[in-house]
Order: sequence, then structure tokens, then C-alpha cells
Amino acid sequence: MEISAEALCALLAGILEGDPEVKVTKLAPIESAGPGDLSFVSNPKYEKYLATTAASVVLLAHGVDSCHTKATIIRLHDVYQSLAQLMQHMERLSKPHKVGIEPMTYVSASAQVGEDVYIGAFAYVGDGAVLANGVKVYPHCYVGEHTRIGSHTILYPGARCYPGVQLGSHCVVHSGAVIGADGFGFAPNSQGGYDKIPQLGNVVIGDHVEIGANSTIDRAALASTKIGDGAKIDNLVMIAHNVEIGRNTAIVAQAGISGSTKVGEQCVIGGQAGLVGHISIANNTRIGARAGVGKSLAQPGKDWSGVPLMEHKKNLKIQALIKQLPLLFEQIHTLSIKHGNQ
Amino acid sequence: MEISAEALCALLAGILEGDPEVKVTKLAPIESAGPGDLSFVSNPKYEKYLATTAASVVLLAHGVDSCHTKATIIRLHDVYQSLAQLMQHMERLSKPHKVGIEPMTYVSASAQVGEDVYIGAFAYVGDGAVLANGVKVYPHCYVGEHTRIGSHTILYPGARCYPGVQLGSHCVVHSGAVIGADGFGFAPNSQGGYDKIPQLGNVVIGDHVEIGANSTIDRAALASTKIGDGAKIDNLVMIAHNVEIGRNTAIVAQAGISGSTKVGEQCVIGGQAGLVGHISIANNTRIGARAGVGKSLAQPGKDWSGVPLMEHKKNLKIQALIKQLPLLFEQIHTLSIKHGNQ
Amino acid sequence: MEISAEALCALLAGILEGDPEVKVTKLAPIESAGPGDLSFVSNPKYEKYLATTAASVVLLAHGVDSCHTKATIIRLHDVYQSLAQLMQHMERLSKPHKVGIEPMTYVSASAQVGEDVYIGAFAYVGDGAVLANGVKVYPHCYVGEHTRIGSHTILYPGARCYPGVQLGSHCVVHSGAVIGADGFGFAPNSQGGYDKIPQLGNVVIGDHVEIGANSTIDRAALASTKIGDGAKIDNLVMIAHNVEIGRNTAIVAQAGISGSTKVGEQCVIGGQAGLVGHISIANNTRIGARAGVGKSLAQPGKDWSGVPLMEHKKNLKIQALIKQLPLLFEQIHTLSIKHGNQ
Repeated sequence: MEISAEALCALLAGILEGDPEVKVTKLAPIESAGPGDLSFVSNPKYEKYLATTAASVVLLAHGVDSCHTKATIIRLHDVYQSLAQLMQHMERLSKPHKVGIEPMTYVSASAQVGEDVYIGAFAYVGDGAVLANGVKVYPHCYVGEHTRIGSHTILYPGARCYPGVQLGSHCVVHSGAVIGADGFGFAPNSQGGYDKIPQLGNVVIGDHVEIGANSTIDRAALASTKIGDGAKIDNLVMIAHNVEIGRNTAIVAQAGISGSTKVGEQCVIGGQAGLVGHISIANNTRIGARAGVGKSLAQPGKDWSGVPLMEHKKNLKIQALIKQLPLLFEQIHTLSIKHGNQ
Repeated sequence: MEISAEALCALLAGILEGDPEVKVTKLAPIESAGPGDLSFVSNPKYEKYLATTAASVVLLAHGVDSCHTKATIIRLHDVYQSLAQLMQHMERLSKPHKVGIEPMTYVSASAQVGEDVYIGAFAYVGDGAVLANGVKVYPHCYVGEHTRIGSHTILYPGARCYPGVQLGSHCVVHSGAVIGADGFGFAPNSQGGYDKIPQLGNVVIGDHVEIGANSTIDRAALASTKIGDGAKIDNLVMIAHNVEIGRNTAIVAQAGISGSTKVGEQCVIGGQAGLVGHISIANNTRIGARAGVGKSLAQPGKDWSGVPLMEHKKNLKIQALIKQLPLLFEQIHTLSIKHGNQ
Repeated sequence: MEISAEALCALLAGILEGDPEVKVTKLAPIESAGPGDLSFVSNPKYEKYLATTAASVVLLAHGVDSCHTKATIIRLHDVYQSLAQLMQHMERLSKPHKVGIEPMTYVSASAQVGEDVYIGAFAYVGDGAVLANGVKVYPHCYVGEHTRIGSHTILYPGARCYPGVQLGSHCVVHSGAVIGADGFGFAPNSQGGYDKIPQLGNVVIGDHVEIGANSTIDRAALASTKIGDGAKIDNLVMIAHNVEIGRNTAIVAQAGISGSTKVGEQCVIGGQAGLVGHISIANNTRIGARAGVGKSLAQPGKDWSGVPLMEHKKNLKIQALIKQLPLLFEQIHTLSIKHGNQ
């Protein structure tokens, strides 16, 4: 693609500062962009590169100082969102549009396959499964019996849905994700071992959900593990049986949600965080990376972090104090000597 | 299935309170059950729903107060275990009994395949592999050369056993689990890099073991990584080379056990916990979620948690004190001022 | 293999102590080795077994006391490295040399396949992909469009490379590893949800890199996620989009590196550690298991651990003080009472 700063500015409905005729051919990060590249700054950490970048055009928020840059600037209300639109446009132009059924697939005679569907080689579609229009099932995917995949959903190579899973439309499931494996349910028996509790429920996932590579979402024991519309789940995340995740909640890599916990809408759960089972998290809660959540969080819109879990600001203070513990112990030692406590 | 409270009570050897003739058709969670549903309370957190549930029949332990419920009650010694039995019964009635070899499988001519075996499409069974009677190998599974799978063991879609793995009978291995990949063994070399130490051992797994989705159990460098009979391993767990896990030990999701560590029998290791290598954990040890275990735990039957690891009761106390650190620093500041230490 | 202590000593260029004619047939761990076994001690924790081992020959570093052992000793400068060489020798003798294309593979007509390549059944090699000489692609692997695999690299069963990935030579990728899935990039939109930012970059991996089972390395948003030559990555590790890992850096199981972070050369990142995004880690940094790294570490060659992150020695001290908090609170209570602060 080759596009002028002026045309790009019109496309993104921005305000131009600088040469309208300079042309760009590709997107590049601000720190490594060269002449002919389009770049952007959305994270303030990267503003320092404005003075030195060789990019021809830079997307920038209103108000950010650009007096030292030689690039043409396109001012935008929301750089990140405009970038997303632009990249979606570029992806549509460049990505091959897969459609049709490759050789060596296994598609049950009782499966229903919609129009414009892609089924890659070695994919398995079980009895009674339903693939709606525009679904893409890449090679090595497994779609179990009576599993339903909504329209325009993509299963990347080796994604697996156990039987009875329901997946909405416009979802993306990455390689190696496992949806609907048995929940971890066992009853201790009198011989000191465990009896398996069959997991008879399923997983129900809304529309516009993304599930990262090698993440696992277990089926419910009885009813349904539920993932709300618009939820975004990163790689290697564990979602246990009977969990419910609210709409537009984002869960970062390697976080884990234990059984039967209910997470509200519009929450963010940081990477490697862990939530115990059987608790409820209010809407708009933000949980920091590596936090350990041991009880319900009832008040919406708050920030939490740490182990033990505290409001984020308090945790920052506590973390600073922990580093000062040696000084504290010393002070007390001194005070104690003065008063004969040693 | 439709069954009367009376018949159900006889099946589970319980004691009936209420209408013996009311019929139930399916199991449902206590908080969402409706008329015609069978439900249960085993976790005290859910006893509050007894007063409001619309379930027709509820399984309940002896001694739990049920005076406010309208449901028929079946009193049981161990609700969770009775539930497991009941659900196993329901699963046998409902789940399709897979048997036979689907098209497009790769089964080596030198592999031994027992009776009543299921091999799904795109499964790979290598030279000299042995599948005992009743084994189920779902689509996309990989059974390496000379790997032995015991009777009635199930490998769900995309489970993988590297060559030479031994898996007992009545095991369940979920999708994406990897058994027998190389241990992480490297020797630093004089060029600042690493030379790979070939991992020449294998993995030996007992009977009645369950291994969760996308968990990994590495092969030993020389001898065998060992998982004892009845061990239950959740999703995304990492078990490193040369580890030994005792019988009936349960390991919750995302926990990791480092190389050569020996975990005793009947232990429970919480989610996201981590154990360093080359240590021993006594039988009946319980390790809390997210605990960091840095040294051997020699005394059996104890509860541990936290980072640094402490006896669980002490850790709870320490966690409470950590939250009070700001107050403590303030007190010392006051005391110091009084005595001219500032 | 059967070999005399004398021949083995010559092969490893060591110094013999004891019977040169005793023969060994296999390697075994020091604590379980029997007569006819070769064993070794490289970790001081295992020196205690020297007195009791039944091994016929033991590899040992210069200077380690062996006066109580009955075994023949071969003294070496670097036991671990010699062991690596010996085991590589044994592996070459024992492991089947896979070559050729099995039935039921999907290899695009536009893919380039070198000499001496192995492609297992059900492997998928997309349009324009390149497999250099000596590459091994095991069953169920996915090699996306225009992905390039360097010479003698091994993809174990079910390893997956999305389109456009570049993998060097002499690499090992274990089962279930996913290279090149979309980075976790979304722009919040005005409806409270997220718009996906297409991930248009790729992953570029150097030579002699090992990637563990079920690890995930995401593709960059624009440019490349980069893994340097000789890097060693364990199982279930998460490497986010735009990350750069320096040469010869080792990352232990279940660690996670967030987006755009740059890790230097010759670093070691412990198991379950987590690094936030957009930071830089200096060369030769060692980060302890379970550490939480929240900011750049600019000084090379240092050891860090803990949450909050501290220099490792300081963290050990702090951990000890944390355990003494109850005592501290008590002392202050006593002091406060004396001075009327209660």
C-alpha cells in the first residue's frame, strides 16, 4: 500500500501538521521507523522518540508536544483506536481469504456446515456439530459432537472444542486452546483416593470473544461455564469449571480463575493473577498482575493488587515499607536497648 | 432420566425427609435449580440457598439445618461422594460409547492394539506402541514408539505421549497434555552458551491418574519421571524431569514442580504454587495456592502457604500484620521522636 | 553399550582413580545406580550418596572428596558438560533416525522441502513454506504459509508455527508450542468493549534455540518478536508480542514476559517469574523463581528476586524479617505501653 499523509488523514478523520504530500508504504514502530514509514505514539513512554524518528508520518494525540520532530503529524482523538482501524484495513487487503474444504478432513455426515466455511486438512467435525456461515476451522482443530460454532468465528490450528460447547459469532480461538475439558472435580473416597465426579455440563461463549493460545476453559459440572460477549482472554489462561466471566472483561496471560467464581463486566485481570473459587468480582474491577484474590470484591470500579490483596494504592505503599523493614528492625533494636528490653 | 425421591434415596442408601413420590429429571446447581430438579449442598457456602431453592429434591449431609426448605431432603453420610456415584451413573447412560478405528488413522504395523479400542481419525500410534483393551485414543493424539497405554485409559483429542512413556490403566489424559517431552537440561559451555543434555529417560504413570488439559510432564534425564496411582493433575501444570509424585496426590492448575523433587502420597498442591527442585515433601502435606516452596518439608500432615513459605496459620497471621505495616512505621516514628532518634 | 572405565576416561579426557577394567553398560542416578552402572555427581547435594552408591564408575569433579566410595572415579573439569557429551553420544547410537515423508501429510505444492527431511503423518506445510535440509516435522505439526524452518531443526508432534514465522537452524520445538499467534492487542472502544488491533508482524527465532512444550510466543503487532541464538525456553512459558530475548538467555517453566520488553543476553529468568511490558533487562541478569519484575534493570550481571523485586541478597534478608514480624509487633507494643502510647 502507498498512501499520502493527506489521504491517510482524511481516512482517519484527523488534523494534519506538516507536508500533506509525503507518502508512506508501511507501518513501523517509532523507535525503528525509517523514511517512507508511518508510525505512531500512543504510550507516553515512547514520546521521547519523536525527536529522533525518521518516520515520514506519525499518528499523535492532540496536545502531545511535537515541536522537535521532522515528521508530518496526524493529530487524532484516540491514536490507539485509529491505529486499530487502520490495521484492520491493512489486514483485509493482505490476508488470504480462506474458504472451502481441504482434502483429508473428517466431517461427520450429521454435521451442519454453513456457507463460505473453511475447513483445513486434518480438522475433525463430530456428529451433529454446527458450523455457521463464514466459520474458519484451521487444520488439526477438533469440534466435538453437537458443538455449535457461530458465524465468522475462527478456530486456529489445533484449537479444540469438546462435545456440547457453544461458541458465539465473530470469535477467535488460537492454537492449542482447549474449551470444554472436564472440570477438576473429585470426591475423596474412603480408601484415601478420589472418585471422579463426571462433568456433565458444558461451556457457553458469547460473541466477539478472543481466546489465546493454549488457554483452557473447563466445562461445568452440571450447568455451563460462561464467557460473556466481548471478553478477551490471553494465552495460557486457566478458567475452571462453573466460572462466569462478564462481558468485555479482559484476562491477561497465565492468570487463573478457580471454580464457580463469577467475574463481572468490564473487568481487567492482570497476568499471572489468581482468583480462588466461589467468589464474586464486581463490574469494572481492575486486578493487578500477580495479585492473589482470596475473597469477593463487592464494590465496582476499584483497583486491587498484591498478596495479600489490597487496594492498589495501599499495596504500593506496603511494598515500599517492606523494602524498609531492615531499617525498622534496626530502629526498634536501638529503642529497645535504650529501655532495657534486650 | 426420571426417578422418584424414594428410588433415588434407595440407590444412594440415604434417609428421606419429605415427599417420597416427587420425581426429578436432571441435576442442577442449588442456586438455579427449578421444580423437577435434583440438587445438593456439600459446600457450607451454599447452605443459604436451602431456604429459597425451587429444587424438588436436595442431597444434604446429616446435621445440616433444613427447616426452611420446601424440597424433599435425602440425608447422606458424604454428599460429594454420593453425587460422584450418581453422576457416574448418569454419564454411563448418556455418553456415546466410542469403539473401533475411524478412517485416516496412522497405526504402525508393529503396534499392538487390544480389544474394544477406539482410535479416532488423525491419531498416530507409533512402532511397537501398545494399546491395551478398552483404550480410547481420540483424534489428533500422538502415541510415540514403544509407548504403552494401560487398559481403559482415555486420551482426549490432541493428547501426546512421546516415545517410551508408560501410562497405567483407567487413566484420563485431557487435550493438549504433553507427556514425555525433554526435561530442561543444559550444561553451560565455554562459549557462554548451553549444550543440550539429551534426556534419555521416560515417564511412568500409575493407574487411575487424571492429567489436565495442556499440562506437561517431562521425561527424566536418565531414569523415570514417576506419577503414582490415583494422582490427579489439573490443567496447565508443569512437572519437570525426574520428579516423583506419590499416590493420590492432587495438583491444582498452573502449579509447577521443579526437577528431581519428590512429592509424597496424599498431598494437595494448590493452584499456581511452585516447588523448587531437588526437595522432598512428606506424605499428607497440604500446600496452599500460590505458595513458593524452597526447601524440603519433612513432617507429614502439615499445612503450608505463602512466600516465604510458612505454616499456614502463621502465614495468615503474617499476612494480617503486613497490612498493618503503615501503622507500625508510624508508631516507631512517634517513639523515635520522643527519644531523639530522628 | 558396554565400555570400560579406562576407555570412558579416555573418551572424556579425565583422570582415573580405581579399577580401569571395570565395565559399565548404562547411566543411572547416583542414588539408585547398581553394579555395572555409570553414575555422576555434579550437584553437591548428591555427594552424600558417594559413600553408599553401588555404581561401578562415577564421574566426579576434581577436589570432591571420594575416600568413602567403592566405585572407580573419573575426575573431570566439568562433570555436567562431560555428561552432556556422553549422553549426546549415547543418543546418537540409540535414537531412530527419522527421514522421509509419511502417508497422509499435507504439503503445499509451493512449499520448498530440502534433503533428508522427515514429515510425519498429518503434518501440514502451507503455501510457500520452506523446510531446509535435515528438518524434522513430526505428526500433527502446522507450518503456516511462508514460514521458514532452518536446517536440522526439529518440530515435535503438534508444534505449530503460524504464517510468516522464521525459525533458525538446529532448533528444537516441543509438542504443543505455539509460535506466532496474535499478540494481545486491543483498543478500548466507545461502547465499553475492545477493537482488535490486527497483529501484522511475525516471530524471528535464531539458531540453536529450544522451546518447551506448550509454550507460546506471540507475533509482533508490526515488526518482529525476536528470540536470539542459543536461547533456551522451558515449558508453558509465555512470550508476548514485540518482546526481544537476547542470545543464550534461559527462561524457566511458566515464566511470562509481557509485551515489548527486551531481555539481554546470557540472562536467566526463573520459573513462574513475571516481567511487565516495555522494560529492558541488562545482559547477564539473573531473576529468581517467582520474582515480579516491574521496572527496567540497567546494571548487568546482578541477581534479583522477590515481590517487590530486590537484589537477591536483600530479598533473602527481607524474607527472614517478614517471618519475624509477630515478634516486632510485640516489641513495639511493649515499648508503646511503657511510654503511654496505647
